[in-house]
Amino acid sequence: MRMERRFNARTTVMQRSLIALGCSLLVSGCAVTRDPLPSWHDGPSKKAILDFVSHVTKPGSIDFVPPAERIATFDNDGTLWSEQPMYFQLFFALDRVKELAAQHPEWRRKQPFKAVLEDDLKTVLAGGEHALLELVMASHAGNTTEEFSQTVKEWLTTAKHPKTGRPYTDMVYQPMLELLAYLRANGFKTFIVSGGGIEFMRPWTEQVYGIPPEQVVGSSIKTKFEMRGGKPVLVRLPEINFIDDKAGKPVGINQHIGRRPTAAFGNSDGDLQMLQWTAAGDGPNLMVYIHHTDAEREWAYDRESHIGRLDEGLDEANDKGWLVVDMKKDWKVIYPFQMK
Amino acid sequence: MRMERRFNARTTVMQRSLIALGCSLLVSGCAVTRDPLPSWHDGPSKKAILDFVSHVTKPGSIDFVPPAERIATFDNDGTLWSEQPMYFQLFFALDRVKELAAQHPEWRRKQPFKAVLEDDLKTVLAGGEHALLELVMASHAGNTTEEFSQTVKEWLTTAKHPKTGRPYTDMVYQPMLELLAYLRANGFKTFIVSGGGIEFMRPWTEQVYGIPPEQVVGSSIKTKFEMRGGKPVLVRLPEINFIDDKAGKPVGINQHIGRRPTAAFGNSDGDLQMLQWTAAGDGPNLMVYIHHTDAEREWAYDRESHIGRLDEGLDEANDKGWLVVDMKKDWKVIYPFQMK
Repeated sequence: MRMERRFNARTTVMQRSLIALGCSLLVSGCAVTRDPLPSWHDGPSKKAILDFVSHVTKPGSIDFVPPAERIATFDNDGTLWSEQPMYFQLFFALDRVKELAAQHPEWRRKQPFKAVLEDDLKTVLAGGEHALLELVMASHAGNTTEEFSQTVKEWLTTAKHPKTGRPYTDMVYQPMLELLAYLRANGFKTFIVSGGGIEFMRPWTEQVYGIPPEQVVGSSIKTKFEMRGGKPVLVRLPEINFIDDKAGKPVGINQHIGRRPTAAFGNSDGDLQMLQWTAAGDGPNLMVYIHHTDAEREWAYDRESHIGRLDEGLDEANDKGWLVVDMKKDWKVIYPFQMK
Repeated sequence: MRMERRFNARTTVMQRSLIALGCSLLVSGCAVTRDPLPSWHDGPSKKAILDFVSHVTKPGSIDFVPPAERIATFDNDGTLWSEQPMYFQLFFALDRVKELAAQHPEWRRKQPFKAVLEDDLKTVLAGGEHALLELVMASHAGNTTEEFSQTVKEWLTTAKHPKTGRPYTDMVYQPMLELLAYLRANGFKTFIVSGGGIEFMRPWTEQVYGIPPEQVVGSSIKTKFEMRGGKPVLVRLPEINFIDDKAGKPVGINQHIGRRPTAAFGNSDGDLQMLQWTAAGDGPNLMVYIHHTDAEREWAYDRESHIGRLDEGLDEANDKGWLVVDMKKDWKVIYPFQMK
């Protein structure tokens, strides 16, 4: 119920963007063309995006891209929603371990579970990748795909971000919601290509971003088809299937989409290969980094951050002239709930 | 060039179906509603399909399915195009081995390659799955995704089916082309879910079936992102990534689409789990087997066939009341080139 309400609130935000877009779509019927990106300050970043879309959609233009080839890929963590002080999916994993602890008395004596149950995040993170993998497997596997989807939906209705006190799905970027809607209104198919779990994202991306499950690419664990009481289920196994990060992103894009993106948006070194892959296409293309520069309204981090590090990618963006969006300077608001 | 010509011919076939559909879309503007499935004989199969689509698309109907959830999945071999006397992709593999033989003098003495080079198909097939896997890896891996796509396209412009003497992409089923267009005109997203190679199908499914690469699910080998002379490529590795057959089909559907189909079409036991998975959905659903009953115009085979065996699936279809399409009785023509 609460989830429904929040999703309705989000829909209203999206509808607002869509109404704004309505006029630019029906150009001839409108006296004044409404701004499709009202939360972006007028400036070089906004202009670069508007110019690119205008060029590739103009019939007869040398840069024209047929609608079927207008593929735009978006990283999720740090590109469409926040990712500090740690990936939101990790908060889910920790909450889930606590919930499952009653069925696992041995976790009280076993790391990294013991540290999770004692809220000792420092020890959890000190365990490195192996510890995190153990937590993800314990919290994400062993159920069916339908059960897992339900668990994610329920968690989103109750969990609150430690800094903002808001549900995690409130912490999406309003300027990016507008950008997604603007691209779709111009014939682009918008995809998520994220290192996050594909089945962690799919239960909510359609309502929050307007991106349907079939356009979500992400990391995954293996699943197995089984008959249970005459009913087929897909059981989630504690075994990595695919890691959709770094050099995995072009692999995931090829596997799921089978076309090279025309535009790609990321915020970290984990997105560098996706941007390189996009840049190597034959036609016109747009490579964009979202740079976290706003310590006051969001977080400021790049080269030294453990989460969402942007170092090599920033150098390459500067070398190659890719667009680097400055969140502090380019965005009027960060989150939808900050809109007047 | 020749490829272009053939694809244009195909487009014309599809356009014909689309023109037929035009009127049913603009119902109020048409004096007479044109038949959206003109190559299907009037009868229970055609009626079952038309009734199903009519029910799920009628606003206010208890069976109404929102457009976003209208997912239709199609097996390819034996469901959208022929698969006898063996899978067309296997003809491609054999031709490719012959082409690559000059670079592999050792193949003259090594099975199963020796048998391929001597056109000794019996020995090739006697080698079983292991031999076939070796041939597929030798013919499908070791190049980049772009090179492989180009190789498939070139092969399709020259290769001819041993029985009909036609290019393989001529041997698609006209009634199924009409069905694909009809479903899309009614808001369905049409997907291929095939045991065949995903990268073998993607170069031509959009032009032949109107199914874009991002809606093709299939078997795959692993790929690796690499920089070659400053240009990123995806290299195809001789290692199985995923087999999209039998119990793999629901896994592939979940992985790529993330939604359960509303309608699923297959022709063999390899499609049974896809149909079971579809049937287990909450809403209305349609499960269809295409039954190869036409020895004269195509091939007649089911329970005893080595290729496209339909045995267990036929029993279950009869038990559960799934639709079994009789190619001989239900279809006026098989291939587009047979149309008057």
